[in-house]
Amino acid sequence: MNYMINISFDGSGYSGWQRLKENDNTIQGKIENCLTQMCGRKITVDGCGRTDAGVHAYNYVVSFLLPEEKEPCEIKSYLNRYLPKDINVSECKRADERFHARLNVRKKTYCYRIWNSEEHNVFNRRYMYEFDGTLDVEKMEEAAKLFCGTFDFAGFSTGKKTKKSTVRTIFSVEIKKLGSEIQIEYTGTGFLYNMVRIMTGTLIEIGNGKRVIESINEIFETGKRELAGYTVPAKGLFLKEVIY
Amino acid sequence: MNYMINISFDGSGYSGWQRLKENDNTIQGKIENCLTQMCGRKITVDGCGRTDAGVHAYNYVVSFLLPEEKEPCEIKSYLNRYLPKDINVSECKRADERFHARLNVRKKTYCYRIWNSEEHNVFNRRYMYEFDGTLDVEKMEEAAKLFCGTFDFAGFSTGKKTKKSTVRTIFSVEIKKLGSEIQIEYTGTGFLYNMVRIMTGTLIEIGNGKRVIESINEIFETGKRELAGYTVPAKGLFLKEVIY
Repeated sequence: MNYMINISFDGSGYSGWQRLKENDNTIQGKIENCLTQMCGRKITVDGCGRTDAGVHAYNYVVSFLLPEEKEPCEIKSYLNRYLPKDINVSECKRADERFHARLNVRKKTYCYRIWNSEEHNVFNRRYMYEFDGTLDVEKMEEAAKLFCGTFDFAGFSTGKKTKKSTVRTIFSVEIKKLGSEIQIEYTGTGFLYNMVRIMTGTLIEIGNGKRVIESINEIFETGKRELAGYTVPAKGLFLKEVIY
Repeated sequence: MNYMINISFDGSGYSGWQRLKENDNTIQGKIENCLTQMCGRKITVDGCGRTDAGVHAYNYVVSFLLPEEKEPCEIKSYLNRYLPKDINVSECKRADERFHARLNVRKKTYCYRIWNSEEHNVFNRRYMYEFDGTLDVEKMEEAAKLFCGTFDFAGFSTGKKTKKSTVRTIFSVEIKKLGSEIQIEYTGTGFLYNMVRIMTGTLIEIGNGKRVIESINEIFETGKRELAGYTVPAKGLFLKEVIY
């Protein structure tokens, strides 16, 4: 029987989603261990994508097959009882047998949170990147338009060069100003390693007057990572939504 | 010149407000060190009250005399630049020369936050007490009324017996249900050591059916701490407002 769960997690304490070896400190590892314990036999799960170490999720989707039928509410309760408190299961449902959390993704939305003030955001400081220089949001919005479309994003990634395609489609980049907080939301088919964080660093440099908007074209043309902005910290990044 | 500042802080990493010796890990200590550095001579400050280790504040008031006149916005900027990120100065003003942050307090409001769900509140888990038993909020509201008035709260405190009065006046106890979160707000003239946390533990035991409402009368009559409920964890407690 195939199931899907929606989870949220605080990624601060983890080396990311993807399990690499037994008992490593990954979110996948915690969930697999928990389901394995529940079923008395080894269970593996598929997540909707890799997230880097320290990245959070408001809504991450996981699918898995269980050898025996169980009530979804039972699975949810069991997981919430035994998972660490920085991972929460908000929903569990039976899924179509062909459903796969990663292979069926159509769109994903990531949100990057910036705290732009000389004051400290005491209670959310673990979930925002504090940048207290000036930021021209209109300029950032203008620049953000250049990311929308289908392009080779190689210059916006720190992944090793492989034969895999680095072409991705971004549907929208929305910038919201909520008091001293600036949120940048990226919706696209998929994102390369560090891509959202490098695009955000590039937008911040533009908003701060350290870089011109047109520099984005050159990064696309050359594919050179060193021409793009810095990689902003993982702690401000959240996977917000996955559309199938 | 006399000044007052409003601060918020995440108390998780501190042994409370009150400085006990040089370079201890207290909020008072951090602020005094910072102002001393700014003025080039030793500055001491008065806070609006002691807060226990691990207790937070949305709005805590501090007053202090500086040897030389400074612009309030300069003081605020300096403090926010050099204080740790878990303490924020939201306002700085010149104060009447007779103003004293502790002696002039008329009312204080504390808020205790309970997360009442089998799910985890991933991003606020450091600032709520997770209690997943059932809670009858109406019963808790009925019981809370018994706290309102002027009484000897000795039984609701773990302070050592001293000659100081343990009589306090509570004006109101409000219980709010916001989804899975329950907030209990206590407004009074002042509170004894651990008093809000023991009253909250007592209300939780009543809401959970482990204790009857009338037991509160007996705690008042005998003044015996062991008859009251347990001391709930500091992490759910916030100083919310101080009225002068």
